[in-house]
Amino acid sequence: MDSDSRMDSRTLREIQAEASAAAFCPSVAPHVRSASVDSPHGHGFTSAGVCRADRFSQAFSIRARSTLKQRMQALDALRMMHADADAPRFSAIVLAGGVGSRMKADRPKQFLELDGKSIVQRSLDIFLAMEEVDTLVLVVDAAYRDRFSHLREHLQFADPGKERQDSVFNGLQKIVRDSKSNGGGLVAVHDAARPLVTVREVREVVRDAHAHGAAVLGVPSKATIKESEDGKFVLRTIARSRLWEIQTPQVVRYDTFLRGFEQVRLNNLAVTDDASIVEQIGEPVRITMGQYTNIKITTPEDMQIAESILAEIEQQPQ
Amino acid sequence: MDSDSRMDSRTLREIQAEASAAAFCPSVAPHVRSASVDSPHGHGFTSAGVCRADRFSQAFSIRARSTLKQRMQALDALRMMHADADAPRFSAIVLAGGVGSRMKADRPKQFLELDGKSIVQRSLDIFLAMEEVDTLVLVVDAAYRDRFSHLREHLQFADPGKERQDSVFNGLQKIVRDSKSNGGGLVAVHDAARPLVTVREVREVVRDAHAHGAAVLGVPSKATIKESEDGKFVLRTIARSRLWEIQTPQVVRYDTFLRGFEQVRLNNLAVTDDASIVEQIGEPVRITMGQYTNIKITTPEDMQIAESILAEIEQQPQ
Repeated sequence: MDSDSRMDSRTLREIQAEASAAAFCPSVAPHVRSASVDSPHGHGFTSAGVCRADRFSQAFSIRARSTLKQRMQALDALRMMHADADAPRFSAIVLAGGVGSRMKADRPKQFLELDGKSIVQRSLDIFLAMEEVDTLVLVVDAAYRDRFSHLREHLQFADPGKERQDSVFNGLQKIVRDSKSNGGGLVAVHDAARPLVTVREVREVVRDAHAHGAAVLGVPSKATIKESEDGKFVLRTIARSRLWEIQTPQVVRYDTFLRGFEQVRLNNLAVTDDASIVEQIGEPVRITMGQYTNIKITTPEDMQIAESILAEIEQQPQ
Repeated sequence: MDSDSRMDSRTLREIQAEASAAAFCPSVAPHVRSASVDSPHGHGFTSAGVCRADRFSQAFSIRARSTLKQRMQALDALRMMHADADAPRFSAIVLAGGVGSRMKADRPKQFLELDGKSIVQRSLDIFLAMEEVDTLVLVVDAAYRDRFSHLREHLQFADPGKERQDSVFNGLQKIVRDSKSNGGGLVAVHDAARPLVTVREVREVVRDAHAHGAAVLGVPSKATIKESEDGKFVLRTIARSRLWEIQTPQVVRYDTFLRGFEQVRLNNLAVTDDASIVEQIGEPVRITMGQYTNIKITTPEDMQIAESILAEIEQQPQ
């Protein structure tokens, strides 16, 4: 995060990272491999073997019980594993302000645990693992911030707003304040309730936004969708080949976002997703092919699906 | 099914049904209630108590090991439980011709067992439970028909076609052939892969089709859907309030279906759902509000969801 504290020597970093991996990820022995994970540029423990990114990420999240130095080392190791020198830089806003009324639980859904780790922590870990992230903003109610005290060096907090776009707007303010040089940069908005997105998917949508100004992750719709004007009769059936189910992250240039928000506020528009703010001012939005596994967790059934997707990931030799 | 064999006296039928319930549904004792289930007209075991429809239906499906007479009695009992004298008559085509390539299994998905009963059997049981069904057609490959030999008095078989509409067309032929009086009647097409639809939902969509000529079950879309012309850039975001995710059954008048098929064949159109055949000839299609629980089972994750929906149904006092 802080470029001054970065080691100049890759080799030294690799050694440190390896040590961190051993300390933080003792359960990975059977998963040690001789190639880097999820990293097209092959940094990482290429000579020493590498622990699986998801397990490492899990180990990283237990740093609440470790010292600051240990945590920084683990973070460094995690990032090295995912390193990609060509990836465009961006800032990220993770939305965790929801109250989760559809989930029968004693707390907002984003704090439920998925295989031993909270949903919001999983979502944060994706961005923590990416060295190209400038500012990481977590939009969460003040009452829940102490859960993230171990991340205070890496996170900015923003208040949830009344509507989704208000939360995004609040998050944007934190990026201006804390990273002035980022005025023309890219901002990725991500729902904390989508903890299964991968570094690779995030990078691809950021790359598309870098090229086209805005991009969203999406998958071809599998459902048969019909449009109705009155909710009673079918107006038309939209050809399934034209329909995309949109996910997050949605990535937009900072200045485009600001112009879009101006329009939304002037015309008092409600927007259900972030890219539609861009569409309203007539600018192009690229669709980046995502994966069906990047589900949004809104019901207890979704928790079960997420668990089985995680279990499947565990079984796959990466 | 055969009106000649019906008892004239409700009372006698009730006694028979009660006997069948006891014989076929020994595990229902804790579920016996003093009101009829899912039956607005209150037939059934109002004085003797009634076993829960889903459990009874399950008991009914084990009749493969019982005599024909016992099976007929059980069917009668099942139907009495769901009786509704005002429900419009219809025929049903259950599509079970798929090969289920998305499901990692040793057999087509519709033959996987869900809580002890195959998916296709569950779908058939819905229609077997409804006395107002004239002809019930199962579209299934000849190789799998012996699995339904215990239902031979209640089922017609048709061959799967190359496309979905070919299967429906083959099914329609069976309805003409075996129930000539039904020429102007209603036909409900149902995916076997949606075994969680309820008698109540089927009846509602049939009622709407009776009133308007065609109707489909659907639920408001929860996803953010964007339309794209080229699969690369967003053309527009469709207001979520206008979008419906369409399920089955889809119910259409027999003669409307035939006219629609003529158009589809003449113009060599491919159709992903049955109601769009009606839309192509400019006739109205009513959307009947369904339930989110009426899921289509296409992946192993869907099996898990279906199981948890079933478990939830079991826990609910009906």
